[in-house]
Amino acid sequence: MIDQQRYPRLSRIEVPADLRQFPEEELTAIADELRAYLIEQVARVGGHFGAGLGVIELTVALHWLYETPVDRLVWDVGHQCYPHKILTGRRDTIHTVKQRDGVAPFPKREESEYDTFGVGHSSTSISAALGMAIALQRMGDERKVVAVIGDGAITGGMAFEALAHAGGMGDEPGGIEPNLLVILNDNQMSISENVGGVTRMLGRLTGSRTLNAIREGGKKLLGDKHGAPARFVKRWEEHWKGMFVPSTFFEELGFHYTGPIDGHDMEALMGALKTLKGLKGPQLLHIITTKGKGYELAEGDQIGYHAVSPFDPAQGMVSKPGAKKPTYTDVFGEWLCDMAAADDKLMGITPAMREGSGLVRFSREYPQRYFDVAIAEQHAVTLAAGMACEGTKPVVAIYSTFLQRGYDQLVHDVAIQNLDVLFAIDRGGVVGPDGATHAGNLDLSYLRCVPNMVVMAPADENECRQMLSTGFQYAGPAAVRYPRGTGPGVAVQTTLDTLPIGKAELRSRGRGIVLLAFGAVVAAAEKVGKELGLTVVNMRFVKPLDRAMILELANSHDVFVTIEDNVVAGGAGSGVAELLASEGITLPVLHLGLPDAFQHHASREQLLEEAGLDVAGIREAVMQRWPDLANTKPRSAAL
Amino acid sequence: MIDQQRYPRLSRIEVPADLRQFPEEELTAIADELRAYLIEQVARVGGHFGAGLGVIELTVALHWLYETPVDRLVWDVGHQCYPHKILTGRRDTIHTVKQRDGVAPFPKREESEYDTFGVGHSSTSISAALGMAIALQRMGDERKVVAVIGDGAITGGMAFEALAHAGGMGDEPGGIEPNLLVILNDNQMSISENVGGVTRMLGRLTGSRTLNAIREGGKKLLGDKHGAPARFVKRWEEHWKGMFVPSTFFEELGFHYTGPIDGHDMEALMGALKTLKGLKGPQLLHIITTKGKGYELAEGDQIGYHAVSPFDPAQGMVSKPGAKKPTYTDVFGEWLCDMAAADDKLMGITPAMREGSGLVRFSREYPQRYFDVAIAEQHAVTLAAGMACEGTKPVVAIYSTFLQRGYDQLVHDVAIQNLDVLFAIDRGGVVGPDGATHAGNLDLSYLRCVPNMVVMAPADENECRQMLSTGFQYAGPAAVRYPRGTGPGVAVQTTLDTLPIGKAELRSRGRGIVLLAFGAVVAAAEKVGKELGLTVVNMRFVKPLDRAMILELANSHDVFVTIEDNVVAGGAGSGVAELLASEGITLPVLHLGLPDAFQHHASREQLLEEAGLDVAGIREAVMQRWPDLANTKPRSAAL
Repeated sequence: MIDQQRYPRLSRIEVPADLRQFPEEELTAIADELRAYLIEQVARVGGHFGAGLGVIELTVALHWLYETPVDRLVWDVGHQCYPHKILTGRRDTIHTVKQRDGVAPFPKREESEYDTFGVGHSSTSISAALGMAIALQRMGDERKVVAVIGDGAITGGMAFEALAHAGGMGDEPGGIEPNLLVILNDNQMSISENVGGVTRMLGRLTGSRTLNAIREGGKKLLGDKHGAPARFVKRWEEHWKGMFVPSTFFEELGFHYTGPIDGHDMEALMGALKTLKGLKGPQLLHIITTKGKGYELAEGDQIGYHAVSPFDPAQGMVSKPGAKKPTYTDVFGEWLCDMAAADDKLMGITPAMREGSGLVRFSREYPQRYFDVAIAEQHAVTLAAGMACEGTKPVVAIYSTFLQRGYDQLVHDVAIQNLDVLFAIDRGGVVGPDGATHAGNLDLSYLRCVPNMVVMAPADENECRQMLSTGFQYAGPAAVRYPRGTGPGVAVQTTLDTLPIGKAELRSRGRGIVLLAFGAVVAAAEKVGKELGLTVVNMRFVKPLDRAMILELANSHDVFVTIEDNVVAGGAGSGVAELLASEGITLPVLHLGLPDAFQHHASREQLLEEAGLDVAGIREAVMQRWPDLANTKPRSAAL
Repeated sequence: MIDQQRYPRLSRIEVPADLRQFPEEELTAIADELRAYLIEQVARVGGHFGAGLGVIELTVALHWLYETPVDRLVWDVGHQCYPHKILTGRRDTIHTVKQRDGVAPFPKREESEYDTFGVGHSSTSISAALGMAIALQRMGDERKVVAVIGDGAITGGMAFEALAHAGGMGDEPGGIEPNLLVILNDNQMSISENVGGVTRMLGRLTGSRTLNAIREGGKKLLGDKHGAPARFVKRWEEHWKGMFVPSTFFEELGFHYTGPIDGHDMEALMGALKTLKGLKGPQLLHIITTKGKGYELAEGDQIGYHAVSPFDPAQGMVSKPGAKKPTYTDVFGEWLCDMAAADDKLMGITPAMREGSGLVRFSREYPQRYFDVAIAEQHAVTLAAGMACEGTKPVVAIYSTFLQRGYDQLVHDVAIQNLDVLFAIDRGGVVGPDGATHAGNLDLSYLRCVPNMVVMAPADENECRQMLSTGFQYAGPAAVRYPRGTGPGVAVQTTLDTLPIGKAELRSRGRGIVLLAFGAVVAAAEKVGKELGLTVVNMRFVKPLDRAMILELANSHDVFVTIEDNVVAGGAGSGVAELLASEGITLPVLHLGLPDAFQHHASREQLLEEAGLDVAGIREAVMQRWPDLANTKPRSAAL
């Protein structure tokens, strides 16, 4: 329970209606309590940290001023929602964030009526909020809609699409302007530093100290407002402002721009929000905030404190001594540098995930071949296609779930043209604590159906490296899809060896049952195979499959079990079944994989267990289906 | 062969090197010949028309000034490439456009070295060209790269992502500006009229007659350039200009803006291009053109003449009298209006495909519930998600191939949240003359793996209507995927009846072999079934499958044949096999579907035949696999 001594106000706030009982003068004090509570709670259990600290004042102001949940509030990116969750019924459970059955780390509709729109991926808020605003307007409903877009999400192309649509609606013949407030929470960061032209555009603000002076000077030059034609004065102001703040950018798209204001100055914030609440049409409020605000260490290391493991707030995060087991991300990062040293045609691309995708060292050592394109997955993929056209060898480092956003580009720009692009797909399969929005459960299905693609899934760290080299050397589109976190702990060689395309690895030979395992589940399959004396294959290639081996094994065994950490529907195992069918083989096949459902957040291990993809689950599934074949002690396990 | 009398210059131009032999003074005359030739050829055989006429001067100017194909020229949207094709080796074959083995209607790398990047979908050119520019620059190659982005393609979010990336590169510490010229071919049209804030932004140009006067006035006010600080003068100019032209928009993103200039004025065009060719860094040239320029009827009906069937140029297009068989698109359009009349919560959304998707009547009758969001597929889907959150019932009308661009939004914003959005997916399966870029061959695979989705494929026009009603009434995400063109010609009822979810339709009962057919191939399957006395099922639902019927038929028959106009990999048939496997049934299954390859352009019928999905192909495949079961005359065909 919350400490009433330390949090005299926050302890009385369960929901925003309680907050709205306080006078406006106390909002700053409430914000201070909220900030202290967030630091205390997230330090205790870990979670997203910096982004939440940056929107403390904004969150308090919005819930005080607007009638949430009647008024609609959309948070984007989702990881800035912790203060919102604390104020909306989840104060006493926020310490369960990311845990199974605990609070989700992102807004989630089924968790709370205050979470109006689930936002795991960024840049969706303006589209969603516009949809809400239109729907309410068409039904004659006067409720307000506010989108808060932060942490680099404005760089995503779909945010631009939504701005352009909203801004232009009033221009259509008979068009109706949507009533919508977009708050641009500008902290100059995505998860890494922001990059690109949008940052440049927003960055004009730097050096704006003279802005007011010049604005006033301009007014004098033109004479008083009542003297000059209003339209002229307005334009003058607008365009002077455009020299220092990005108003013109948004205003050209049709938004009314207000700002920039200091997002930690409660008085300024309330002043602006009160005015905007009364205005119609598409409004954009530009606020400047500091990621990690109020916790000095987080302000000083905004990337490091984006998301944290539990730590002592008095001390800050301490990196644990000793060599850690390398993650697949680490393996990729090392490989990328080594291959870049060996081949100066390698180019590395990330859509704003330098840290998450393991590109930090590469970005330092090869700055001229490193491209952070901002949150822009579509562009990332087609940029690579363009590079490949001219003979360089691009590597797109991307999370499985975010590649969904570059799917058309993968099909249309890379695969159709059979271009030499390597996709290094991190967080394939079960991801875990971030929940369904970040799951990589679909990639084998949506990649396998694409002609020309080579799709690989490594069984261990060293194989991941080999596959990256294989895909890189293969003169066409290839994907290596590896899981979040660490693998079985196989030592990684330093060579740049490749694997033969489309060849599987027979791990052990038994009788009766063949376990055909793909990627991260090979280790568990191997254990089950050893226990039960079964044949085990590390399939390595989802596409092309090792036809020769599959046919040989079909000939010499009774049944197949396919195992993968992808949905069964259309997955790798389904490919095996298609191959058997095309050969007229009617061997019984058991497909083990992820369910046809979105998995809630929990640890990766918990989700794999729930899906029956751990050792116990695989063993049980096999023995239940074929008790006669499996229910014996090990037979021959020699090759 | 080209007529040397009528085309004295063009007849001497096989490739751009020939063009470059002419003096600059003759370029206008060459442009006139090129325009006349394009009209003659496209009128003869049909094809994309208006966009090409709008870039005649530009095409001539670019190929004359730049050393193509050494310099890299990227056309976006692809359908403006016909003049380019005529000047680059395809003058005498352009009349084969869209036909099997003929010239492709879009740039295609394997067709010509002058086609540097395949562009069927729009908005990709800046990303691709930037990739090329970076690759060349990193290899110390001085070749030029030019992207021409036209016909509304600038409204796509990925174009914005690319502009922002290119514009910001020089701002990075140690960053290198890319040398890249983007030509914005602004004709105020996509295929329909342009809409939205980008149009608004570009539209400031209207009324720019006073621009020059004001600009000059500003200079006077500030004094001569030599008198005022240069930076100040530059900014003054820039921001005055911003009041009338969209320079600020692009310049804020980091591009150097030139324009707008008249894209049909060869002298102005050459002047600007010559200057720009010598400049470094990211350059944007804004040209204003008229879609259909030089053919009066096309200028007057830019939508109608976007793409044409063969017509007499002296007369123009003549609509054929008599009632035409309705296409699936027509069926959708009628249904949408009827359902809108019955339910005022229906909202219709199109990403810039009002005509192609059959929304013309709806847009007129229900303007307040009609949303053309411009070329912005990502936004279209999430806008629908937002609308569904507030209780309205959005229908997203989209081509299968373009839904690939909204895939993440379908997964992340609609399906995870189980929102009530109906996807009316036109051009599913084989599309034909537009080639691989427009094929809808993958949708059943990439949709079937998504949890919560209901996926339907109608066997005929009336069923399409029933399925649309079914998906609309179903309280969750649903997709109806129908083919291009006409169906078997079943009369369409006017009611709004629904079908039971997940129930297939037994069309005929035979023995031995079951044909399980999905969507557009049901009619062919039924014929084969009749001939050979087989059981035939119209499956209707790709997801969920009719489990009860499949199990019953597996029990009473020897073998299954699944038939679909989707790739076999992960397709509907694969779902049937997964179901059988999960039930421990080892019935032989033959999967008929589209190949694991991108199909070239040809007629839809030709491509279906090539894939063995016509009556003859299905019959042959069945008889070849099971000669004993099939190779007999009809047995009982009664239910």
